[in-house]
Amino acid sequence: MISNRVSTMQASPIRKLVPFADAAKKRGTYVYHLNIGQPDINTPPEIINAIRNFSASIIPYGYSQGEPYLREAICEYFTHYNLKVAPEQIVVTNGGSEAISFAFSIVADPGQEIIAFEPYYTNYNSYASTNDLKIVPVTTKAENGFALPPIDEIESRITHRTRAILLCSPNNPTGTVYTREEMKRVVDLALKHKLYIISDEVYREFIYDGAGYTSMLSFPEAEERVIVVDSISKRYSACGARVGYLVCKNKEVIGGAMKLAQARLCPPMVEQVGAAAGFRLSFDYFKTVQQEYKRRRDIMYKELKKIPGVVLEMPQGAFYMVVKLPIADSEDFARWLLESFEYEKQTVMVAPAQGFYSTTGMGTDEVRMAYVLECDKLEKAMKVFGEALKVYPGRI
Amino acid sequence: MISNRVSTMQASPIRKLVPFADAAKKRGTYVYHLNIGQPDINTPPEIINAIRNFSASIIPYGYSQGEPYLREAICEYFTHYNLKVAPEQIVVTNGGSEAISFAFSIVADPGQEIIAFEPYYTNYNSYASTNDLKIVPVTTKAENGFALPPIDEIESRITHRTRAILLCSPNNPTGTVYTREEMKRVVDLALKHKLYIISDEVYREFIYDGAGYTSMLSFPEAEERVIVVDSISKRYSACGARVGYLVCKNKEVIGGAMKLAQARLCPPMVEQVGAAAGFRLSFDYFKTVQQEYKRRRDIMYKELKKIPGVVLEMPQGAFYMVVKLPIADSEDFARWLLESFEYEKQTVMVAPAQGFYSTTGMGTDEVRMAYVLECDKLEKAMKVFGEALKVYPGRI
Repeated sequence: MISNRVSTMQASPIRKLVPFADAAKKRGTYVYHLNIGQPDINTPPEIINAIRNFSASIIPYGYSQGEPYLREAICEYFTHYNLKVAPEQIVVTNGGSEAISFAFSIVADPGQEIIAFEPYYTNYNSYASTNDLKIVPVTTKAENGFALPPIDEIESRITHRTRAILLCSPNNPTGTVYTREEMKRVVDLALKHKLYIISDEVYREFIYDGAGYTSMLSFPEAEERVIVVDSISKRYSACGARVGYLVCKNKEVIGGAMKLAQARLCPPMVEQVGAAAGFRLSFDYFKTVQQEYKRRRDIMYKELKKIPGVVLEMPQGAFYMVVKLPIADSEDFARWLLESFEYEKQTVMVAPAQGFYSTTGMGTDEVRMAYVLECDKLEKAMKVFGEALKVYPGRI
Repeated sequence: MISNRVSTMQASPIRKLVPFADAAKKRGTYVYHLNIGQPDINTPPEIINAIRNFSASIIPYGYSQGEPYLREAICEYFTHYNLKVAPEQIVVTNGGSEAISFAFSIVADPGQEIIAFEPYYTNYNSYASTNDLKIVPVTTKAENGFALPPIDEIESRITHRTRAILLCSPNNPTGTVYTREEMKRVVDLALKHKLYIISDEVYREFIYDGAGYTSMLSFPEAEERVIVVDSISKRYSACGARVGYLVCKNKEVIGGAMKLAQARLCPPMVEQVGAAAGFRLSFDYFKTVQQEYKRRRDIMYKELKKIPGVVLEMPQGAFYMVVKLPIADSEDFARWLLESFEYEKQTVMVAPAQGFYSTTGMGTDEVRMAYVLECDKLEKAMKVFGEALKVYPGRI
């Protein structure tokens, strides 16, 4: 018998369909992966080369806080956003995942609550479990582009156990970019109730149509209450180089993060070398990447809009969409796509949206689709997806 | 205000003296570092070269469980110990630290207890804090070489909250290697009370004088109850390459570890390439390393034994000793060494042993010393240490 906290933890809703995809591939069916945020764009050669030039004769423990040269490179990177961050306000982590876990552990004790906007990144649930916290969901809706709900709806969920409001913009899984006004309202609410704001900003560079980017670091009035979690995974297409970080101007929070950081000694030393090379890249790199993702988004949006019964607003960021479909059970649909459907020996893999909600019954008619395939592949994938929806027996 | 669990967490007792060491160096005093388990032996060039040959054009997410080629290399490595481990019984982690944290989280819920033998590796406390567990200490003593206490003394600490017994052999910080008989008694006790055994075996290769090595994996009767935590950090002098793992033959435990592993996506991909190169090294590598550490141990032991009032038994493993000194407050002593003492412009840095105990008042007359310096430096360091003890005002 293992612990309750682990046995009741949800298995990754994104990864649990993998065996069905493997079986489909074994049968000779080509699977378009729209299910996972694994960019197919090359890691910048500057990062790979920095790793290949790794020249120490010993790989020793490093600073628990992260190597100083990396924290300086991150500060330099933030100046492009007119954000002033000092190296001592950064703690480098094992991927963005650890930054989320540190933030949860620092702001709340077991049994306490964090408010989050569903649908949300499923791993927030995992870190809530391991830290014995509760995520209290406030629902956002496909019909209005998953914008933040009115502030009194958020405020009604605040109790004496609430410790933080967690948000992610550009959003995974919806692709929504919150406006500065929406974010300011969250800031005011957090200040009013003395809550922390945990701001997941890993998709900062993936914004299209000139939608303005707002960082929670740009509200000086909330400086002591904001914890930004961040990662190189998507930014530099380097998901497997486990380098993330948290930024906070509150010294007590950084002190807490340092204790947690010292317990696990240091982040990976070789991959920090690669990460620093990434942060030193010219911002022109992002322009190219943005153009590519914008093209992909436009294809996916255009094709989806052609399908009767599909509900979605044009998302402005990240590389995901949450799409409402004329179906009753998206888990069944996602599995059916892999088990029972093919069109010209091809099928698609999508992420059922239930796992992105904590309110029971939500997301059953939605899937998350990631536009992480090249344009021509994406067009083919959308053709297959459209054919599937025509013949899916669970269609309503 | 941050959470209680983090604000009450102990700061690293090893790292907290660092500012005093920095100040000493600034004054021009040479500091011999006997305080930290950072080997000065080169990382095998095979590992560095594997990293330098990293050739993918993209660093994608990998398997949450760890790359298959690495898990296979680990299984192959275990065959040298006549231990049969299958790749699906291994979960690769971000260093041994994460393996410890996973094990704690899997075996126990908040408020439950794990029995450990003090003095013990201080980070066990950190992971007990972050997982909201309690470590119940059973004291081992310098006078009998920190051997395991009689079984009824251990049994007397078992309550309905106890979920596991944690042990480490070869031991950090004492250097003690438990005999097969001692370990078998722990196995029997764990089976009797249906407890897990968490066995920290990261110093497996650092055993001298032909002392026999016993892995907890070698007791088939305990197969379902044993979780081994392990790491490449010391084994291949690659502390900064954050690759560790846990091994368990209990499928429920591995299932739990997989959920925790999926939450943090994957271990570092580049450093796994290096780690696999390590596990494929000939075991001759360890012979050379063992000879070197044995020489160092012998020097440190011989010199310490010359000092009146010093109590220690010859340790047979790892690269640490816990030494009882004729002093009243080892924290004061360690700080005094850095702040107020020098001998021919040199001083030594040691780890006060209090941080390795959870029983209040224990370890105040003990320090942990790591023999991680080359022999000639170590001789000089021991000379300086002897001179310091002669003049330390807190001597009793």
